[in-house]
Amino acid sequence: MSFNTFGHIFRFTSFGESHGAAIGCVVDGCPPRIPLAAADIQRELDRRRPGQSRFTTQRQEPDAVKIMSGVFTDEASGQPVTTGTPIMLLIENVDQRSKDYSDIKDKYRPGHAGYTYDVKYGLHDYRGGGRSSARETASRVAAGAIARKVLDHLLGAPVTIRGALIRIGKHPIDRARWDWSQVEQNSFFSPDAGIVPVWEQYLDETRKAGSSAGAVIEVVASGVPAGLGAPIYGKLDADLAAAMMGINAVKGVEIGAGFGAAELSGEENADEMRMRDGKVAFLSNKAGGILGGISTGQDIVVRFAVKPTSSILQHRKTVDAAGHDTEISTKGRHDPCVGIRAVPVGEAMMALVLADHLLRHRGQCG
Amino acid sequence: MSFNTFGHIFRFTSFGESHGAAIGCVVDGCPPRIPLAAADIQRELDRRRPGQSRFTTQRQEPDAVKIMSGVFTDEASGQPVTTGTPIMLLIENVDQRSKDYSDIKDKYRPGHAGYTYDVKYGLHDYRGGGRSSARETASRVAAGAIARKVLDHLLGAPVTIRGALIRIGKHPIDRARWDWSQVEQNSFFSPDAGIVPVWEQYLDETRKAGSSAGAVIEVVASGVPAGLGAPIYGKLDADLAAAMMGINAVKGVEIGAGFGAAELSGEENADEMRMRDGKVAFLSNKAGGILGGISTGQDIVVRFAVKPTSSILQHRKTVDAAGHDTEISTKGRHDPCVGIRAVPVGEAMMALVLADHLLRHRGQCG
Amino acid sequence: MSFNTFGHIFRFTSFGESHGAAIGCVVDGCPPRIPLAAADIQRELDRRRPGQSRFTTQRQEPDAVKIMSGVFTDEASGQPVTTGTPIMLLIENVDQRSKDYSDIKDKYRPGHAGYTYDVKYGLHDYRGGGRSSARETASRVAAGAIARKVLDHLLGAPVTIRGALIRIGKHPIDRARWDWSQVEQNSFFSPDAGIVPVWEQYLDETRKAGSSAGAVIEVVASGVPAGLGAPIYGKLDADLAAAMMGINAVKGVEIGAGFGAAELSGEENADEMRMRDGKVAFLSNKAGGILGGISTGQDIVVRFAVKPTSSILQHRKTVDAAGHDTEISTKGRHDPCVGIRAVPVGEAMMALVLADHLLRHRGQCG
Amino acid sequence: MSFNTFGHIFRFTSFGESHGAAIGCVVDGCPPRIPLAAADIQRELDRRRPGQSRFTTQRQEPDAVKIMSGVFTDEASGQPVTTGTPIMLLIENVDQRSKDYSDIKDKYRPGHAGYTYDVKYGLHDYRGGGRSSARETASRVAAGAIARKVLDHLLGAPVTIRGALIRIGKHPIDRARWDWSQVEQNSFFSPDAGIVPVWEQYLDETRKAGSSAGAVIEVVASGVPAGLGAPIYGKLDADLAAAMMGINAVKGVEIGAGFGAAELSGEENADEMRMRDGKVAFLSNKAGGILGGISTGQDIVVRFAVKPTSSILQHRKTVDAAGHDTEISTKGRHDPCVGIRAVPVGEAMMALVLADHLLRHRGQCG
Repeated sequence: MSFNTFGHIFRFTSFGESHGAAIGCVVDGCPPRIPLAAADIQRELDRRRPGQSRFTTQRQEPDAVKIMSGVFTDEASGQPVTTGTPIMLLIENVDQRSKDYSDIKDKYRPGHAGYTYDVKYGLHDYRGGGRSSARETASRVAAGAIARKVLDHLLGAPVTIRGALIRIGKHPIDRARWDWSQVEQNSFFSPDAGIVPVWEQYLDETRKAGSSAGAVIEVVASGVPAGLGAPIYGKLDADLAAAMMGINAVKGVEIGAGFGAAELSGEENADEMRMRDGKVAFLSNKAGGILGGISTGQDIVVRFAVKPTSSILQHRKTVDAAGHDTEISTKGRHDPCVGIRAVPVGEAMMALVLADHLLRHRGQCG
Repeated sequence: MSFNTFGHIFRFTSFGESHGAAIGCVVDGCPPRIPLAAADIQRELDRRRPGQSRFTTQRQEPDAVKIMSGVFTDEASGQPVTTGTPIMLLIENVDQRSKDYSDIKDKYRPGHAGYTYDVKYGLHDYRGGGRSSARETASRVAAGAIARKVLDHLLGAPVTIRGALIRIGKHPIDRARWDWSQVEQNSFFSPDAGIVPVWEQYLDETRKAGSSAGAVIEVVASGVPAGLGAPIYGKLDADLAAAMMGINAVKGVEIGAGFGAAELSGEENADEMRMRDGKVAFLSNKAGGILGGISTGQDIVVRFAVKPTSSILQHRKTVDAAGHDTEISTKGRHDPCVGIRAVPVGEAMMALVLADHLLRHRGQCG
Repeated sequence: MSFNTFGHIFRFTSFGESHGAAIGCVVDGCPPRIPLAAADIQRELDRRRPGQSRFTTQRQEPDAVKIMSGVFTDEASGQPVTTGTPIMLLIENVDQRSKDYSDIKDKYRPGHAGYTYDVKYGLHDYRGGGRSSARETASRVAAGAIARKVLDHLLGAPVTIRGALIRIGKHPIDRARWDWSQVEQNSFFSPDAGIVPVWEQYLDETRKAGSSAGAVIEVVASGVPAGLGAPIYGKLDADLAAAMMGINAVKGVEIGAGFGAAELSGEENADEMRMRDGKVAFLSNKAGGILGGISTGQDIVVRFAVKPTSSILQHRKTVDAAGHDTEISTKGRHDPCVGIRAVPVGEAMMALVLADHLLRHRGQCG
Repeated sequence: MSFNTFGHIFRFTSFGESHGAAIGCVVDGCPPRIPLAAADIQRELDRRRPGQSRFTTQRQEPDAVKIMSGVFTDEASGQPVTTGTPIMLLIENVDQRSKDYSDIKDKYRPGHAGYTYDVKYGLHDYRGGGRSSARETASRVAAGAIARKVLDHLLGAPVTIRGALIRIGKHPIDRARWDWSQVEQNSFFSPDAGIVPVWEQYLDETRKAGSSAGAVIEVVASGVPAGLGAPIYGKLDADLAAAMMGINAVKGVEIGAGFGAAELSGEENADEMRMRDGKVAFLSNKAGGILGGISTGQDIVVRFAVKPTSSILQHRKTVDAAGHDTEISTKGRHDPCVGIRAVPVGEAMMALVLADHLLRHRGQCG
């Protein structure tokens, strides 16, 4: 069962609500003797941290992570390393603004999980979205940082996992201008510097209109060896699809040519092969690096679509918990485009799936 | 771990290769006392069976299913019912044409899993695709037929799960002409009678050109109660994404508005709510019936894209197992559009995910 | 996989080392709307807490538990209740005496996990036993306290789970004097007041000799309904055996007549049945409340044997990490009979297994 | 969840009832390229097969196993090898004697699972015990035969797993006469030739009295490397305890000194260590080869107790399904001492647990 656990061998269990004492996770199955310091994790968390531009929520959360177990100082190197036992990561909540939730707590936000939580559990922690808050994704980014270390350490060569925002609303990037070095240079993780002013203006207008915007993210993993995955139900692409679809607000996932593959002919779609320097090389990558649920050695390419957040100022028709028709307008500090901060989350999920599949492969085929 | 097992409480483990003795599966966790006869399963298998039109493979497989365990005659009713113990379903392979595989066994088909299987396992059963053959999906359809019985029986009201082909290649249906009653009236599971001649001509041309075509399938589940799912990693939509992405040749999955949601504004995307006859009603279904990973009670709407099959007559550049450049042309009896027979498979995966989530919900929230 | 996770639907993942910052666990799959306050958990932890008599370790740990997530104040009752989301329990380590471990860190204690951890992981946190310390069992007792609440709440009637120490070394209790009310009246959880002075003298001598003593614990659950369990690999007795054998230092587990059953005849062993007040009653309980892996409705009776701790003052032959023969004598604050504090741990494991099986049963057979 | 599945990476799912069409299992997660022929499995099945002496059931079952999937002829060697995909093993039931079950089907056998199955599932297949029949253990022996191949192949050196019957009723063997070569020379798997005539007479008397006898089995695995296991909930000893307790009719399990450890002093119990030829050697094996849930490299020693079968001729008080007091006498072909045929089953479970842990270890610690 996997209510709040992700992965099989390299696995983590997440806990915590948006306005509770803390969030965090327990990473289990991590191989031993991998160098790991809190700074390795903090670096990734800082990329996801809110309040870094006017295009994300203004909530001020340092998101400072503490490693509470599973790491010990190696005598030989004097460095902290993993011990093979569970690594608990704790992130205390700091900016739980003592706002009045009385308006919102009895009304269901259209498009928000509050309604379904109430139906399922009979109650929910409505403060800041509680468990359904995107704040939970900090745990995934933290666990993902460890997954990156595992991949690099076990493979003996870096696996590069990079994400980029490739669309906001009706404004896609120009892929001809793709430049990975731009991604960390703007507030949007955009690989296309040219689209940045367009997005800035668009989001400023969106915010002024009390609305919100959707987005599309692309995540690419380079350096993944061929052979990771499984043939039927533990397929690498199926696991990636679940990982990405499980990120808050995601409504679509595709691999390689994705939905576009449906419009291609068989000869356009199938990536031809040639020997290059004694190794198999593909002449294209429509497959997105996965065939039959198993990695080919090419870049693994995943895209996912994020809907616009449901927390908007505009007045919307809804119902309340007592069963009356009413209207709602959601105030508070919300991301006008939650897709932006989903970029490091997508990268983390890619790392988590790959680390788990690497360990699974070693287990069965080692 | 889930190499070949799908689901958590209602789960099944599949086995078998395309040209081995048999394929089938073991369904475990099925509740007891649910009426189940082989005919209930055969009906669904017959919809997926090859050789029913010139647009699917000409392999002649009766796909006759036998229930080998887990069912017993109830004394009160005199009818066979499930006992709560594992249900083994066996489908013997009949038409394993003794063709000569010597051409193909040492060459990798571009876009096919043969290469990745070889990298992963060091060998593979190349006859007819072996384990990676779409033939394995018969097991899913068989298990899915039991899942449908579980849903109907436990909910006391039918859950209607219907699939339709909505695009072949560059030819989408006209959604304005959608008519569910048409789906079983043509060779394509098309809900739009008007597109049928277009697809017929297109696939005839595709076959003549030695090529193949992709497709998009939509599966809709009606009658699913609100509250199924889980908040973080066992999300209903994440499980559906894995289920559909795990079908052979699938490259993209979306729920509700899907990738289109990225282009909507917050107010366009969030489905407003109103009380209707004392119950919550939604004024639209952009969410595709799922919010926060939990069902809303609306129709659950999933779409997935199927790539064109890689088994084509056209000559393609490839390499062989000995590491030489070569060319390949795949003869044999292949579906020119594997998307067609993916329709009942998509329905089955929907049924399997929903049955498992219904049992999981009963477990945790009773 | 279950490196550090126990259970299937009601499951928990434990973390932490003896001398790290904290220990604790994440309880997942707990049903919603069950009243739960920290005091409910603290009460059980206090029964296991060290330093309460001269017969347990003198380490002073308050073992104060904090509920960090998964509980919310129910508006109707004003009481904290579970929300169905993960419950993180945190127990900070306080008395990590800054002793010098230089003697012990390079020598393997005979009978201790230090050697096997080193072989498996290539290093281990040797401070106070690290992850292999019995201190980890506090997490189990904490999770078990929640399991008790789940059982009582869902069944609507109390399930009484009680443990007792029935042997120390060569000194068994007299079962004819069994009195549950005595258990909380002495330092040993003994149901036989008469044995207490014998054990006191025996353990005083043991400690003086720099030695340690083994023990046998019996745990009984009353009020468990018939029908919990599963027929083959998720058998209730198999899960109980794993649960008890997984407690530190346990070397044997038996159910009902246990090893004694091997010496009985078929007619002595099989519990005869009679109708009593319209319900099935058993005339004896050799089965220990379980037949075919499924509960009968009788008391569930489990016993387990705890070996004497390997941390003793007596000098023992051993080797060091550098591969030299040497001797070791373990100083420090150790329980002379770890079996005593295993009593509440055994109760907790019983509660955890039963709660999980109750939810599993609801899931499949609801 | 594990209703009918055992293991994590090397796992198998069993199916079938005593008097259904067939029994068998699907082995999943088996590494590829391991030589495997049906004869490798048949050899083990033949050791468990009924009807080989007057001390086991007279049911005549050839127990002929067919490998239905997951094996393919390796071109290099011309031998059948595993492919890494699921291996389905099918054993058809032959001797389903068409006896009249009308006597027994409405009466509960004291000590038998019929009652608990009925309570749990609302019905059960009563023919020959249905799913609860010891016949299901043939699937375990078959899967265990593959597990043995995995161990030997991956370790590159044989792991020897041997079982022996060490007690029937009140008659234990004399351990001083232990001779492994005797085990396959008598009808009891006894390592002590001297006890054989005693047991023969005892069981003849038992049968004449319409009664049955219990037994104790010991299983020893030699050649297991140190380091297999996990620290907390996937402990090697906990998994062995579950494996053995899950065998039909088992009521107790112990490792190494077992229950006897409770009576030892710390210095008697802890196995001292010395360097021998540059390797760690233990001076005794009270631990039974496991410390802290992880293998030490010594022999792994497990014992389990089997109760006398509940299917006896003697008249016993019971109730019927309609709720009336009645008596029962079980005719039919039953083992007077089910413990005898439990010997190969215990070996198989040992092999299955070890193979799974070997793969788990490779996965995490590679």
